Amino acid sequence: MSQTTLETYFSKVDELKPAFIQRLSDAVAIPSVSSDEGLRPQVVEMAHYLKEQLANLGAVDIELKELGTQPPPVINSTLQLPPVVLSRFGKDPSKKTVLIYGHYDVQPALLEDGWNTNPFELVLKDDKLYGRGSTDDKGPVIGWLNAIEAHRNAGIELPVNIVTCFEGMEESGSLGLDELIEQERDAYFKGVDAVCISDNYWLGTKKPVLTYGLRGCNYYQVSIKGPGADLHSGIFGGVIAEPMTDLVRVLATLVNGQGEIQIPGIMEMVAPVTPEEEALYKDIDFDVSDLTAASGSNTALYQSKKDILMHRWRFPSLSIHGVEGAFSSGGAKTVIPSKVIGKFSIRTVPNIESAKLDQIVIDYVNAEFAKLGSPNTATCELIHDGAYWVSNPHNASFTAAAKATKAVWGVEPDLTREGGSIPITLSFEEKLKTSVLLLPMGRGDDGAHSINEKVDMSNYIGGIKTLGAYLHYYAASDTN
Amino acid sequence: MSQTTLETYFSKVDELKPAFIQRLSDAVAIPSVSSDEGLRPQVVEMAHYLKEQLANLGAVDIELKELGTQPPPVINSTLQLPPVVLSRFGKDPSKKTVLIYGHYDVQPALLEDGWNTNPFELVLKDDKLYGRGSTDDKGPVIGWLNAIEAHRNAGIELPVNIVTCFEGMEESGSLGLDELIEQERDAYFKGVDAVCISDNYWLGTKKPVLTYGLRGCNYYQVSIKGPGADLHSGIFGGVIAEPMTDLVRVLATLVNGQGEIQIPGIMEMVAPVTPEEEALYKDIDFDVSDLTAASGSNTALYQSKKDILMHRWRFPSLSIHGVEGAFSSGGAKTVIPSKVIGKFSIRTVPNIESAKLDQIVIDYVNAEFAKLGSPNTATCELIHDGAYWVSNPHNASFTAAAKATKAVWGVEPDLTREGGSIPITLSFEEKLKTSVLLLPMGRGDDGAHSINEKVDMSNYIGGIKTLGAYLHYYAASDTN
Repeated sequence: MSQTTLETYFSKVDELKPAFIQRLSDAVAIPSVSSDEGLRPQVVEMAHYLKEQLANLGAVDIELKELGTQPPPVINSTLQLPPVVLSRFGKDPSKKTVLIYGHYDVQPALLEDGWNTNPFELVLKDDKLYGRGSTDDKGPVIGWLNAIEAHRNAGIELPVNIVTCFEGMEESGSLGLDELIEQERDAYFKGVDAVCISDNYWLGTKKPVLTYGLRGCNYYQVSIKGPGADLHSGIFGGVIAEPMTDLVRVLATLVNGQGEIQIPGIMEMVAPVTPEEEALYKDIDFDVSDLTAASGSNTALYQSKKDILMHRWRFPSLSIHGVEGAFSSGGAKTVIPSKVIGKFSIRTVPNIESAKLDQIVIDYVNAEFAKLGSPNTATCELIHDGAYWVSNPHNASFTAAAKATKAVWGVEPDLTREGGSIPITLSFEEKLKTSVLLLPMGRGDDGAHSINEKVDMSNYIGGIKTLGAYLHYYAASDTN
Repeated sequence: MSQTTLETYFSKVDELKPAFIQRLSDAVAIPSVSSDEGLRPQVVEMAHYLKEQLANLGAVDIELKELGTQPPPVINSTLQLPPVVLSRFGKDPSKKTVLIYGHYDVQPALLEDGWNTNPFELVLKDDKLYGRGSTDDKGPVIGWLNAIEAHRNAGIELPVNIVTCFEGMEESGSLGLDELIEQERDAYFKGVDAVCISDNYWLGTKKPVLTYGLRGCNYYQVSIKGPGADLHSGIFGGVIAEPMTDLVRVLATLVNGQGEIQIPGIMEMVAPVTPEEEALYKDIDFDVSDLTAASGSNTALYQSKKDILMHRWRFPSLSIHGVEGAFSSGGAKTVIPSKVIGKFSIRTVPNIESAKLDQIVIDYVNAEFAKLGSPNTATCELIHDGAYWVSNPHNASFTAAAKATKAVWGVEPDLTREGGSIPITLSFEEKLKTSVLLLPMGRGDDGAHSINEKVDMSNYIGGIKTLGAYLHYYAASDTN
């Protein structure tokens, strides 16, 4: 790939900026809220909008893949899941094939939630584009279409074959997508060399990042059962063993005030920090003040950048979420709850084995409960789990993305992980046996699920350039 | 008082049994639910019903004392509190004066809650009278009227002056009653020698009791505040101090699995068990199986009768009621709650000083929180308190009630306490400077606040006899 090609592409993106803003504006105007059954027609409308746009841009084999009816709980039991929009640009066997994933559904949004402007109208203010989906994830999805249009318009051949996979249920658990990936693995998705997902954010607001890891999450509950019904503490206080007493004593043994997991055997499974990994943290643009701002409090457990990021990204954590069955309202109630259920979860990282973790946790909770000598009964169980994901941030796809970032932004991207999970990442990697790259467009302060969601104009335009440039650098890479 | 007088009275009660059942039936038919604003007219109707009955029985100075509007929270801000029904039978300065307290309001009840019969229709089945209020507290209130009628009808002069004080807000916090007692202390209530309250229950189902003690209750909350808003555990788990972690660790230090309060300095304030008190427990009709049946579980902390009753009645207990602000629903939510409020209360007994207890508890919680070294902030405070009450079960009033019980039931009553509180007991004792006697009519299994509330026919009729006999024995007592 010549430097001229990229420069031509970048110029074309700048030239088409008004059209690219209009396209995002058209997309934001469709309130494709997947969690609102009443808005399901608008989610489907958004799929049709994408189909039309893709057709205009020259895509072939366009399919709206139906995923069947939405499983319970639903109000309307015949509610159809929104389709997955599949399409192709190019089928050249001599080229690499990149699958681009994004989602066209959005989080709910109401003006009265505190938005400064109508959430379903793209508004430009102070060089920021406000609107629901502007950054999560219509900005990146439309960004891909824009990148393709810029190529077309500039007469630049796409350097790779592209397969699009745009879903409409991401904000509601990606229902049906796993099955679709499995089903199309050797069909529509056959020959995919790399997957690129643009659905997360820069760590901060100044420096672009590439994301190579996500923590997993194993969620547990411990149920302690005593009396047959809730009792009055005046009559029964002091004479029967209270489940809530047992529960707080068990929960208190899980993690200490410094956030250190107290269950033996978990930290032992964590992969040691290698010098190579350690070096990744050195240049990352982050500071304890970013954490303080984000949490709205001076309650950080660590002060150094490396400690904070490592504990967010590559060490496990244990959070106690709450108690079901106990008194939970304001005021005072003299109840002895008969059955209480404590909820906690552990964020998992390499090389924690999920099944082994479950056994360690359950055995530990049972042992701690047994120490109490309580006549109540306790049960600890896993409610759900999702595995961690870590990629090699120096593979061909990441290297191409780093070069693209450098070409657009003039800096090497920070290599980051995230503390939460994006389960579909692992699905693509495992089912398609390809590397997955997380190439974010927006900034850490975009407010993805909040009011006044925005994408900075520079990120939107810079992001379109980066997505296109990535395709060129990846096409030119030696490795597959 | 001659034995013949009592026999004549008892015979008359038996003779008037049909009329006495009819009177209770009439009272139960009025749905005087004080907690339901929509039924307030029926509560007031019940006051007027009593006024009419009292007038028919020869009461004088009958007054429906208005207590003003009900304080918030109420739907209707001009809602009037139901009146207190005051009246007198006799003003003979040579006689003692007994104030009889009862309440004419009832708990809510709906057939669909699981009642076998209409809750506001008194139904006789298997020698039990079913209906809301049958035992709590229309049975005893109407019982007093019946006792007076039996005297009148038999031509037996009442041996004491009687002052009635029947309120209509007992099930809703006795709003306004404290102020009324204070106000009438040197007016309507001047010269009262003893107060008799029939508004509790036998310990079990076989043996009558007199109740001489109630525990108090100091209710606390500890609030732990961290981040500015609820956070996602994926992003913040492991890097900020979580309030819920701190809270369970603090709550876990309050009480152990054996129900033993872990806060130093509280047990030290508890009055030692005297040999005289210890002897009171010997003959009491109670067994661990009663506790097991009542709690619906095999979770008793003690197996011996004396241990169980002492820990219910005369030792303090600490119950953890719940957590406000944390996740409390079913399922899983990966939230880090930003502010959590733990609720717990201590049942108090002689000689725990309430203010000193507050200081000890708050200092202890603060010290335990400080040990965690957490950057979060914690506040512990008292939400409300109510003092314990213990009387001398061998004073003139109790001795008279014991003799009355023996005369009716043929056994010495058990001398019991209760683990919960009846705050009005202490109000009468403190404001009127008189002894208060708790003389229950119903049995421990009457289901006072539950579905299918009942009073056994033998308890209703035996109770009427006991109430009347108590007046005679008390009148004949030497002591005042």
